[in-house]
Formats: sequence, C-alpha cells, structure tokens
Amino acid sequence: MAMVCLSDFEAYAKKYLPKIAWDYFAAGADDCTTRDENILAYKRIRFRPRMLRDVSVMDIRTKILGSEISFPVGIAPTGFHQLAWPDGEKSTARAARAMNTCYIASTYSTCTLEEISTAAPGGLRWFQLYIHRNRAASQQLVRRAEASGYQGLVLTADLPYTGKRRDDVRNGFRLPPHMKVKNLEGAFEVCKMSPVDPSVNWNDIYWLRSLTRLPIIVKGILTREDAELAVGHGVQGIIVSNHGGRQLDEGPATIDALVEVVEAVRGRVEVYVDGGIRKGSDVLKALALGAKCVFIGRPALWGLAYKGEEGLQDVLRILQDEFRLSMALAGCASVSEIGQHLVQFSKL
Amino acid sequence: MAMVCLSDFEAYAKKYLPKIAWDYFAAGADDCTTRDENILAYKRIRFRPRMLRDVSVMDIRTKILGSEISFPVGIAPTGFHQLAWPDGEKSTARAARAMNTCYIASTYSTCTLEEISTAAPGGLRWFQLYIHRNRAASQQLVRRAEASGYQGLVLTADLPYTGKRRDDVRNGFRLPPHMKVKNLEGAFEVCKMSPVDPSVNWNDIYWLRSLTRLPIIVKGILTREDAELAVGHGVQGIIVSNHGGRQLDEGPATIDALVEVVEAVRGRVEVYVDGGIRKGSDVLKALALGAKCVFIGRPALWGLAYKGEEGLQDVLRILQDEFRLSMALAGCASVSEIGQHLVQFSKL
Amino acid sequence: MAMVCLSDFEAYAKKYLPKIAWDYFAAGADDCTTRDENILAYKRIRFRPRMLRDVSVMDIRTKILGSEISFPVGIAPTGFHQLAWPDGEKSTARAARAMNTCYIASTYSTCTLEEISTAAPGGLRWFQLYIHRNRAASQQLVRRAEASGYQGLVLTADLPYTGKRRDDVRNGFRLPPHMKVKNLEGAFEVCKMSPVDPSVNWNDIYWLRSLTRLPIIVKGILTREDAELAVGHGVQGIIVSNHGGRQLDEGPATIDALVEVVEAVRGRVEVYVDGGIRKGSDVLKALALGAKCVFIGRPALWGLAYKGEEGLQDVLRILQDEFRLSMALAGCASVSEIGQHLVQFSKL
Amino acid sequence: MAMVCLSDFEAYAKKYLPKIAWDYFAAGADDCTTRDENILAYKRIRFRPRMLRDVSVMDIRTKILGSEISFPVGIAPTGFHQLAWPDGEKSTARAARAMNTCYIASTYSTCTLEEISTAAPGGLRWFQLYIHRNRAASQQLVRRAEASGYQGLVLTADLPYTGKRRDDVRNGFRLPPHMKVKNLEGAFEVCKMSPVDPSVNWNDIYWLRSLTRLPIIVKGILTREDAELAVGHGVQGIIVSNHGGRQLDEGPATIDALVEVVEAVRGRVEVYVDGGIRKGSDVLKALALGAKCVFIGRPALWGLAYKGEEGLQDVLRILQDEFRLSMALAGCASVSEIGQHLVQFSKL
Repeated sequence: MAMVCLSDFEAYAKKYLPKIAWDYFAAGADDCTTRDENILAYKRIRFRPRMLRDVSVMDIRTKILGSEISFPVGIAPTGFHQLAWPDGEKSTARAARAMNTCYIASTYSTCTLEEISTAAPGGLRWFQLYIHRNRAASQQLVRRAEASGYQGLVLTADLPYTGKRRDDVRNGFRLPPHMKVKNLEGAFEVCKMSPVDPSVNWNDIYWLRSLTRLPIIVKGILTREDAELAVGHGVQGIIVSNHGGRQLDEGPATIDALVEVVEAVRGRVEVYVDGGIRKGSDVLKALALGAKCVFIGRPALWGLAYKGEEGLQDVLRILQDEFRLSMALAGCASVSEIGQHLVQFSKL
Repeated sequence: MAMVCLSDFEAYAKKYLPKIAWDYFAAGADDCTTRDENILAYKRIRFRPRMLRDVSVMDIRTKILGSEISFPVGIAPTGFHQLAWPDGEKSTARAARAMNTCYIASTYSTCTLEEISTAAPGGLRWFQLYIHRNRAASQQLVRRAEASGYQGLVLTADLPYTGKRRDDVRNGFRLPPHMKVKNLEGAFEVCKMSPVDPSVNWNDIYWLRSLTRLPIIVKGILTREDAELAVGHGVQGIIVSNHGGRQLDEGPATIDALVEVVEAVRGRVEVYVDGGIRKGSDVLKALALGAKCVFIGRPALWGLAYKGEEGLQDVLRILQDEFRLSMALAGCASVSEIGQHLVQFSKL
Repeated sequence: MAMVCLSDFEAYAKKYLPKIAWDYFAAGADDCTTRDENILAYKRIRFRPRMLRDVSVMDIRTKILGSEISFPVGIAPTGFHQLAWPDGEKSTARAARAMNTCYIASTYSTCTLEEISTAAPGGLRWFQLYIHRNRAASQQLVRRAEASGYQGLVLTADLPYTGKRRDDVRNGFRLPPHMKVKNLEGAFEVCKMSPVDPSVNWNDIYWLRSLTRLPIIVKGILTREDAELAVGHGVQGIIVSNHGGRQLDEGPATIDALVEVVEAVRGRVEVYVDGGIRKGSDVLKALALGAKCVFIGRPALWGLAYKGEEGLQDVLRILQDEFRLSMALAGCASVSEIGQHLVQFSKL
Repeated sequence: MAMVCLSDFEAYAKKYLPKIAWDYFAAGADDCTTRDENILAYKRIRFRPRMLRDVSVMDIRTKILGSEISFPVGIAPTGFHQLAWPDGEKSTARAARAMNTCYIASTYSTCTLEEISTAAPGGLRWFQLYIHRNRAASQQLVRRAEASGYQGLVLTADLPYTGKRRDDVRNGFRLPPHMKVKNLEGAFEVCKMSPVDPSVNWNDIYWLRSLTRLPIIVKGILTREDAELAVGHGVQGIIVSNHGGRQLDEGPATIDALVEVVEAVRGRVEVYVDGGIRKGSDVLKALALGAKCVFIGRPALWGLAYKGEEGLQDVLRILQDEFRLSMALAGCASVSEIGQHLVQFSKL
C-alpha cells in the first residue's frame, strides 16, 4: 500500500494497532464534536491563490523562539508513544531531529525526558508539563528538562481534570503493565489522586517563571481574554489548542480560535496552533491566519505506528512536500510572503 | 454493557421497552423536526472556555424558587411512568429525592399525587396540571397537591389539543388496562372529550392564583411576547418548552427560544428550560444562556426503563458528573460564575 | 396500512401506480432541485407559537375571489388524472365539492371540462389554460369554461416550452392510447407542434381580458417584477408557482418567492401558492407569509391513486385536520388571526 | 441506454474507460474539495425567472474575441485525448467544428497541433501553452500555432508545479508507450525536469506578447488582484479556472471567483470560466454573472469516450438544447438579454 497522504497512515494505524491503543489515541471528549470540528473547520477556509509569481526557489524554513526549523510543523506533546511503537518517544525524537523540527516531549511519555534527549542529541525539543499537586515534583521536572537541554517549557492549561472520553471508559483504558510514565516514577507515592493540581491559575505562571530561564509556552488557550492574560503574565508563546478535542467538547475548532487569539496578541508573543492538521495546505492556512508554526498530534502517532522513526519521517516529509507545493500554487515563494490575504472564510 | 452516557440508556430503553411504549415516549409531532432540533440546536452552541482558573473546589448547587437542589437538573413532567417501570412515578420520586433535586409530577401519572408524595417524603416536588373543562376537577387537584406538600404548580400552556404523533396513531396507543391515570379517576364521568379545556387563556392564571398560594410556573412559553404576558400575569417561573417536540412541530428549539425569553424577562422571574438535554455540557449551555435550571424528560424515562429508581439515579449522577466536569473545563468553580460570555452561536 | 399523513399516500401511489405514470407525476426538471426545494424550504421556516389564547372555537374557512371554501387548500391544475384513477378528473371534481373547496381543472385533463362540471354540479371550479398558437382554440376554451360555470380562468405563464424531465425522456412518456386530452380534441389537426404559443407575453392578458368577464389568475409568477406587471395588467389573482419544479430547475422554492411577491403586491390582488405543501402546518406557514390559499398538486394525485374520489377526500381531510390543529397550537382561532408574526426564517 | 444528460456520459465513461485513464481525467488535487465545489457552487445559485416574454425566436449565438460561435460553450484544454478515443484530439476538433464552437487545443495533446488543425480545417481554435524552461521551445510552439491558423493563445498560469492528485500517484500514472506528447517531441532532450518554468511571472506576458500578434488569454485567474494585473499587462481575455480542481485544492469554486473577477475587470477584456458546468442552466448562470462564454473539460472527454467525435457532438448538442430551453424558461430570447438580474445566491 502506497503511503500518499496522512489518511493512509491513519488507516494503517487503525488496522494494525490494538483496539485499546487506537481508541485511546483517537478518543475525543463526549460526542467528539470538537475533535472532528478541528478538521472540518479547515475545510471552511478557502484560499485566494495568486498566479504568475516566481516560485522557482522555495524557502519553507521558519524560526520558533529563535530556533530555525526546516518547515513550520512540529510534534505536539502526546502521551504513551510505546503504545504505537516499541521504542516510543526515542523514535519520535530521532524522527524530529532527522527532519530538523521541534518535538514537544510530554510529561506522560513512556521514556524519561533524559532518555529522549540522549536518543537524539542536538535536536530541538521543548518539554510539556502540568503543575502538580506536589509542586516539588513539577520543580524537579523543570530542573531535569533544563539539564537535558530542552529549550522551552510548555505548560498545559486545559486539563485541571481529565476530559470524559467514552471509549476509554468503556475499554477501562490503562497502560499495559510493562509500560510506565517514567518521568513521574517515584514522585507521587503519597498522592493517589490525579497528580495534576486543579487549583492552578495564572499566578502559577509567576511561580514557574521563578524556577527557570527557559521560555514558557502556555498551551490550551482558546479566547482573546486568556490570550491577553497569557501575554500579561509574561509567557513567550501560546499554543492555541483544545487538546485534540479530548477535554471540553464543543469548544471552538482551533483554527477558528487562532484568529481571535492572533488578533488579541498583536504580535507580542509567538502563537502556534495544533489540532486538525491533515494536509500541507492546512499548515498554509494556519500560517496565513497568523500561526508561527503548527504542531501535529495524532498524525505523528500514526507515523510511529506505521514504522517508528522512519514512519514518522514519512509523515513529516509528506506534510513538508504538500506544504511547499501548496505555497507555490498559492503564489508564495517563502514563508514571509504568507499572509491573511491568502484566505477567506467560506460562508458554508 | 457499561452505562457511560445518556445515549446508552436510550439504546437500552429502545431495545427492552415494548415497541408501543418506546414509540409513545419517543414520539414527536408530525415529522419530529422540533423533537430533533431540540438536540441539534445545542450542537450549534460553542463554548468559549477559560483556562487557569482555580477549579479545585467545585460548587454545582443552585436554588429554584428558594429551594436548594444539588445541581441544576430536575425531572420534567412526563406521563405514564409505569410504562417504563412497574413502580412508576414512585420510583421517580425516590430517585429525585436521593439525588436531592426537584421532580415535577405530571397529572397524567400512573400513581396518585399522594402516592408519589408518600413514596419519598421530604423530596422537593412540583405538580404539573392542565386547566380542565371541569374546573372543579382542577381546583381539587390544586388542593390535593397543596395538601401533599408539593411546593409549586406547573401549568402546561401548550396543549389546548394533543399534537399529532403519527406513531401513536398507527399504534392505536392507549394505556394497558391495568394502568390508570389515577389522579383523574372519578373526576370525569360526564366528559367523554379530552378533559383539557382549549378555551384556557391568560385570565385563567388569575383564577389559578385565586386557588392557591403555591408559586405558579407556566410551561410551554417560546416567545418574548408570551414571556412578557407571563410576567405581567404574576407567575413565579417560566419553563421554556415545546413539550419535547410533541405538540406543534417546527417551532423553535427550546435552547434558541430560551435566549429570547430570558431577554424579555430581564430577571423578573426564574426561567427554566427543557428539551434536548443529553449531556452535562448541555446543562452548562442552558445556564450560560440564562436558565436557572433545566429539566429532563425522556432521559429520565430511559433511566427508569433501565433499572427503575436506581437507573434514574444513574442518569442523574452521570449528568451531574458531566456538568461538574464541563464547568471546571470551562473555568467555572461555581454556578454563579456561569454567564453568557461562556458561549457563542456557531454560524453553521 | 393506516393513512395517517400525506406521505402514506405517496408511498401507496409509488407502490401501486405503473412506473411510467408515477414517474410522470413525480418528475421534476433536470436535477429535480427545485421540486425538492419546494419541500425543504418549508422546513426552514419556524413557527413562533403563542400560548393561552382561547382556541375552543376554530374557524378555518376562508374566501377566494369572494367564494367561501371550507379551508384554505384547493386543488392545483395537474394533467391526466386517468393515469391515477379510471374516472379521472370527474373523481377529482366530486372530492373537491364534497370537501367544499376549489378545484382548478387543467386543460390537459382526460375528461372534457363539461364532463368535469357535470360530474359535480355546484362545485367551485376554475379552469386552467394556456394561450395556444391557434388563438381560436383558446377562445373556444374560454367560452366553454364560462358556459360550464367555471368561476375563474388560470393562465399558466411558465410553460412557453416544456421543461426537461429526464425520466419522461427515458420512459418515452406519452398517454396510453385509450386516454385523450379531450378538451383539445379536434382543435389542433393542423398543428403538429406543441399547441402552446411561446410568443405569449403580457399584452396577451389584455386579449384574454377582452374575451371574458371571469376573473383572470396568472400562475407561475416568482419575482416582484412580474408580480408588479401582473397587477398592472389587471389580473385578479396570482399563483406563485414553479410548476412543481417541472419547468426551470433551480429557480426559487415557491414559499420563498411568495414573500417577495406578497410584498410587491401589497394587497392589491389575491396571492396563492402551490408546490411543496405536505402538512397542515405548511398551509399555516403559507398563510402567515401572505397567501390567501394554497393549492396541492401531487398529493391530490396520490389521493386519487389510493381510492379515487374517496382517497382524495382522505387527503384533504387530513390536511384540514392538521391545519386546524396547527392553527390552534400556534394560538390562532380563525384564519384572520394568522399573520407574519407567527413565523421566522431559520438561519440554517 | 439513452443519453439524456451529461451525467449519462459520465457514467458511461466511468464504466468503459480503463481505470487508470478514468482516474486521470477525474482526478482532483488532495481531497478533491475544489473539484467537487466547482459543481456544488452552481447549485447554490438560484434563478429569478421572468414570465410572459416572447421567446418564440431564440438566438443563442455569441462572439468571443470577434468570432461567432453557435452558443456560448467551448472546449477547454485538456490533455491526452487518445486515452479516451483512438483518434484523440482530431476527433475533438471535428466535433467542435461541426457544432460551430471554439476548441482550445492543449500543448499536452496526443496529436500535434498541425494534425489537429488539418483534421478540421476552418474550425475556430485557440492553442493552450505553458512557458517552458526552454523558452525557445515555447517560442516555437507559438510560431507553429500561428502558422496553423490558431486564433488565440491561452497561457495557463496555475501550474508552476503539478498538483498532487493522489490517485495518479497510487496508479503510477503515465501515458501508455504508444501515445506521445507529440507537440513537445524533440524539444526537451536535455531537460529531465518538468518542462514548465516555475519562475514564470507577469513580465513573461510581455515576452509572449513580443512573439505574436495573436490575442493572449490568461487561464487560471481566481482573484480580483490577478484580474487587475492581467488587464494591466495587456491580455485580451481571462479564463477564470482552477484547472478543474487539479492544482491547489480548497481554492474557490470558479463560478464564485467569476463574480469577483468580472467586477474587477469592468468589461475591459472578455472573461470566460471553466469548471463544474454540467447542465445548460449552468451556462446560463455563468453568463448571468458576466462570463462571455464557458468551456467544458471533463464532459468533453466523456463524450469522446462514448463515441469519439459523434459522442462529443452529442454532449454539445445536449448542452445547447438545455441552454436554449433554460434561457427561454427564464424569459430570455437572446444572449444579450441575460444579466445579473436573473440570479441570486442562495443563503444555504
């Protein structure tokens, strides 16, 4: 079977992953409306392509927080990569480095952040974290991430509690015994509750700031009000995200929320987006609407499920080729030429 | 089979209830457009969730007409609960009390209002009534409801005649011989017509007022004009309802009508809504748009059909958990923080 | 099988009519978009029902051009009723008279206009005609209609040529040999072309006016411009119609065009509408938007196909009952209380 | 099987063409959204038909760049006609001449432009070209087209690179060995890359202008900005086109883009449109929105696949009959009466 577009990888993963793992990766909250809207919302955006512009030399590189990446697509933080491929996050890290892009490693990895770092030295990586009830545990993770060369901290803001994913409840989902959330091992003996602290609020950004000099990127912002607060509390970046539709169902599609957030931020910090990216032209749309870079979640897992590191590289390469082609066909030779004039919202 | 969400109970009820009973509960008028729109309209409302607000202590209690309930979901008046479960409305009353919420008992119950009251002493209950051709019969019901400790009277305004429910016509629906509309037994020997009086009009509110000191809640209001009239005639509450889509087909979805009614009422009386509530997040949407509380109809019957009192408690508990979670994920720690800023209408 | 609503008659007719006859009656032009839109457009109109109005005494009578009918639904002109029932238009005439409503007999009947008249003396009938290449033939039809007691002339304006109905082309549709367009027998020996004159224009209204004192109703108007012209040329009535979607495909649904026409006419002549009426509540919507009366086409043929005169009465009686009920549930006790305040256009 | 409408030819071609050829002709870029939108967008346009206008004498002729054609439908440039019919573009040329309309022969024909010209002497033909990396090759094609009597040059502007057509990738599409891109034989021995030059820009219009006195028509314009540039660079015509949805997916439907382009051009040059034309009434819509003529792509190939020259004539004749009929039913007796007043955009 030829792997021509991302949905080929999705079909492969659905066919070959254990149902419980597929269901976990695919899950959305409640009716999965937001999960699916993330994709549908892209389809309501139409290009206004420009013709007869010299696109013989294409430059698709960009920079995020000062680091150059080969094209504006990184790997979003997702948990439990060993469910998709035996080497888990180590493979993810290697693929991201090979493609010269950014990988946001999740706290809920099945490898330690140090193992991830060691697997692909020199790769651009950020570390995703929650603020735990046990603040010392969070502080320790920040220190370890700094020590291991992670170049940014991504604070997930949309999970004070875990969303209701019906299939996971039905399946009684939990990690197989031979897999561990290794980053947290030993940190939570006392606490039997979810380690994430639901009392977390904007003041905790100051606390996090006090722990580290790394840039702080807040993930999960969907409104102009929260975008303003994020800038006001001194973060370096915002990821517009609804957790892949896995938390509050029936919130906005991320590409729709991006417009509102970008408008509020007015260039003061970088804005990224995840959720629903399935084609290179989706990347182009997100950039036209003001994202500096996008991050892919489930498609990266499909790539891993297909052939580990190599499969994820295939996914990234397809996205890269499609992004370059759609840029050229829309009349842009470099990322700097992409702007809002390229798109319009369909009335349908 | 795990009962994870309300549609699991629906599937159960559809599978195990006699067809004639299922059809009766499921029926909508004519093409069932409004019945289905009640649900679809919720899906067109999008949350604007707020992040990083302390939601560690959640308070989901509210008050309706001065009485505290454990969360803003009560049981709407529906008829013939023995079709769903042998103990009928007695089970309903027990479940509502166990969950500390309000049950609106229907005149068309298969138990007397006294039996309902005795089954669950101390529970918060309102009594639903029509105004009958035989006014003495209505007056008697009001007296009995007062005497039995009901704390509100719900006057159904949208049934001067019964809507055309095609399946009931095809099935020749009527109660099995061993069930009775016990509240009305003996009251209507003379009258072979429908006992409901189609000449009822706003002046009859004054008549009803003269009979009782109980608060009067008018059910079935869908326009700003009627909301204004209701307030002007001195009712204490309004239930925005289209009778579950069983009366006039192709009227507005109740959640859409709620907006118009709340705007007209301007806080002068409490406004509630029923119809189409299937998830905890639907409750959150209704409250964001100004409802003080919602009432569930068919889902309560599905719960009864599943396991009687226990099944209905399951339904209420799921709604309660989902409501609490959606509040937290939207950034609200208490009901008082819910407001219109939380939602927007999708253009689709 | 119980006949509960009009679609039951449709299902019956589809099952029992010869395919070629069913196809002919069901046919729409080209992709049948307008045929289907006629129905869908009604579904986009929402009621704003009013409560607690005395609806104990319902009056659903109305008058068209001064003649009282039992409710505002007449029979639109359609051809070839013998394809549906052996007695053809004679049965139609009897059913219309029995229900005390108006029947517009088509020139393309399989009975002569005199036979129709004789079959149901005293019934309210209008006669539909085209203007033929052979004007003497048209003149003769007008004289015969006057002589036979028809009380109005309906000039069809939307058929300079016959629309392209693909199924009729595929089926090679033509009348079976034992049926005849009896009204035209002998009139067109010379003319092998379609007898309808495609050069007909507004001036021909004056010619028609010169032939008769009967009121002239022009059928097929869809725009405000043509409505203004119709009034300016002295017609007594307008039927907003797209020929059941059988002529120009992808014109407006008639209920949508009605709004525009009514606004242009400003009460100077009566406005009627046909196309897409399938429920009593559709009639209520059309009246709320300014129609004085509606006419049904295909549903009348389904009634004939079911049981001739009796079946058509069943269809009319169901529509009458549904209309009365929807009026009452919307809060109107008489036709004079129906107005635009009762409806709103859905945004969907 | 009767060939009644264009979709009959589509069904035939899908059934009888080799899958790889069908897939190539049917292919759209990526998700095929734009390919399908081209058709759907026509369905969102509604006619406002006018009645009682003399349509006894119909004149459907028009002129494009001064040449009369029998009706406003020409043949768009598409490649590889031998995949559909052994005689390939020679049959296309004969059918176009027989129907007295314009054929835009593609550079990527399987016959030489001279063979095409010789096959149907005297026919109105334009020649489609790209600007090649090897400019001498382009220059040579222009000379040959002039010498062979082509009366216009159509420069395709939307293919700096070829769009991603998934099925072609999966099928490994390439021409069978016995077919050749004969126009280019010998011209590109050196160049193994795509011969099209992605550096082409508006200045190259001046270069092309310097080579020829033939009118230049630029094909692939979708925005007002590019329409303004085209006029400013002195072209004689614009074809609003998205290459049948084969290049950038999720750009606008051509009929939607036409409105924007026509508005920008303000009559300074002729504007044509291709993509999505499937019925005569689509032609009428395009003309009402300002197109001087439309061009058909895939339907011409279906006609060829059905019966070569004769099949394509069938397709054109059906479109012609349907166009004439829809004009008459909309109240227009000649092309000059067609205007924007005839259409409105549906809100759905």
